[in-house]
Amino acid sequence: MRRILIGVVGPGEGADQKEIDDATLIGELIAKAGWAVLTGGRVAGVMGAATKGARAAGGLTIGILPTADTLAASPAVDLVLPTGLGEARNAVIALSAHACVVCGMNAGTASEVALAIRAKKPVVLLRADEITSKFFRSLDSETVRVAMSAGEAIELLRGVLMVGAGPQ
Amino acid sequence: MRRILIGVVGPGEGADQKEIDDATLIGELIAKAGWAVLTGGRVAGVMGAATKGARAAGGLTIGILPTADTLAASPAVDLVLPTGLGEARNAVIALSAHACVVCGMNAGTASEVALAIRAKKPVVLLRADEITSKFFRSLDSETVRVAMSAGEAIELLRGVLMVGAGPQ
Amino acid sequence: MRRILIGVVGPGEGADQKEIDDATLIGELIAKAGWAVLTGGRVAGVMGAATKGARAAGGLTIGILPTADTLAASPAVDLVLPTGLGEARNAVIALSAHACVVCGMNAGTASEVALAIRAKKPVVLLRADEITSKFFRSLDSETVRVAMSAGEAIELLRGVLMVGAGPQ
Amino acid sequence: MRRILIGVVGPGEGADQKEIDDATLIGELIAKAGWAVLTGGRVAGVMGAATKGARAAGGLTIGILPTADTLAASPAVDLVLPTGLGEARNAVIALSAHACVVCGMNAGTASEVALAIRAKKPVVLLRADEITSKFFRSLDSETVRVAMSAGEAIELLRGVLMVGAGPQ
Repeated sequence: MRRILIGVVGPGEGADQKEIDDATLIGELIAKAGWAVLTGGRVAGVMGAATKGARAAGGLTIGILPTADTLAASPAVDLVLPTGLGEARNAVIALSAHACVVCGMNAGTASEVALAIRAKKPVVLLRADEITSKFFRSLDSETVRVAMSAGEAIELLRGVLMVGAGPQ
Repeated sequence: MRRILIGVVGPGEGADQKEIDDATLIGELIAKAGWAVLTGGRVAGVMGAATKGARAAGGLTIGILPTADTLAASPAVDLVLPTGLGEARNAVIALSAHACVVCGMNAGTASEVALAIRAKKPVVLLRADEITSKFFRSLDSETVRVAMSAGEAIELLRGVLMVGAGPQ
Repeated sequence: MRRILIGVVGPGEGADQKEIDDATLIGELIAKAGWAVLTGGRVAGVMGAATKGARAAGGLTIGILPTADTLAASPAVDLVLPTGLGEARNAVIALSAHACVVCGMNAGTASEVALAIRAKKPVVLLRADEITSKFFRSLDSETVRVAMSAGEAIELLRGVLMVGAGPQ
Repeated sequence: MRRILIGVVGPGEGADQKEIDDATLIGELIAKAGWAVLTGGRVAGVMGAATKGARAAGGLTIGILPTADTLAASPAVDLVLPTGLGEARNAVIALSAHACVVCGMNAGTASEVALAIRAKKPVVLLRADEITSKFFRSLDSETVRVAMSAGEAIELLRGVLMVGAGPQ
């Protein structure tokens, strides 16, 4: 059946330990909610952590890579899609996800968040600082939310997706 | 675990009954081989038939749509990826598939086949006419094969993917 | 000879009069500096104003449209490139521009700015508010600058591009 | 004013001398007709030859590169657009060109021709062999033409574009 895809976006190589831990837990909770995890596909940082967390919880994982090959793919991604699109693949992630959770921030992540907002997708900023929260909420105060824990992020997603806790 | 994705490409609205029947059976056989079916996502023609066949056999189906919305998606697609890329999504299909089976031909399909050959992916042309076979084999005689039945196409795929009959 | 392309990005339909006026003047000044103006191609808002300003000053204008057709193109664009890529064309604008000037802000514009920063391109935010300036400068304090007038934006561009005032 | 863009497509590294000579002359004739030359941007093969020919005749040249950088760009391209899209940029070339001339054939070129036909753009195959001609004409016999010389290709373009010989 049609699966709900939750994008988990954030820094790759530059992710810090807190972001890695958050992304791992988010991945696990998404899987337990019966949703699939969608990332930028690489093993680095938030992408790798979210897919690893989802995999450990028995969830389905999809990775949309910027490269034409799969060399940088996380081993925890079930469906690896090498696009060869470079950063333009961020637009594909934004459109393909039903909603996005954001762990950490850099320029690439900011483009994914902006494109998700542009596409009217619900976005949950996890532990975002004040400037980041204010900026993205100034773009669309209705679709952008801030959560202070992975659990709160999942609850916000449940609310916006209006779906139950079980498998879809 | 990492799944093998087999692209099934061919005409949408213009597909004839033979192509629809072939695509349905190909989808079923791909699913039974333990592979996932990857299409252009729409319900029309070969795309819709391949996903329907795979779904009926309990297989996993992925659709990479040209549109930014999911209105034209086949109901038999489990993972719907609206890209908003238009025909540029054909390059994503070509790169994401481990190999492609081709049922029927038109300009869009020809671009998918050419891009798959460009990416060195194995391509099986099902019941292709002489001109089509000769043209694509002139582009790469090693990666392009012709099959005269769905069963033969699957056998050719098994050979090039060097994988067994069971789930991956 | 190889031309310098300056991206001018900002809201389309939602642009206010100040942004329109700024974009028009920016387009004129870019043209007078001998650079070509690169926009998202549409006639609406900042895109249309920048190309109109450049055209009036005898400059060359290029528009990279999200659509597959040219119906929404500004009549002041010399080279109209319909991409059919949707918002993924924002990544093409970011990579193709040597530097970007930003007039106003919304989600689409934010994605262009983030992608330009990701690509290490110099970005000048014209009359950006404090939150916007702080956010983008937190992504890269070296490549992101703020100008309080069109003239100042051009001077900043001259500095970062290390080029003279005459035609290239 | 709005310029007419003529795509010139064909092999890069694998182009033979005849194709290089044809592309050079085609570029020159396109420039003399007042049209701009649009290529895949690289210096290699048909792309480089067509832009060189156009440049020598004082024409305007645009190159849409697959890469995110401009290292492989032809020095004869005036407007270099690095897209980072990989082969998906072929779809952008197909949509952006008003018509295409094809010198030689390989898998990448075949995808450009197929995408141009998909977009209903006039295509002139220069000195195509019988298999290639028959294949592409089977996709659309109205938009695909074959020319046996560069001069004949230009005459066919004039016919389909219904434009005069002077600058646009």
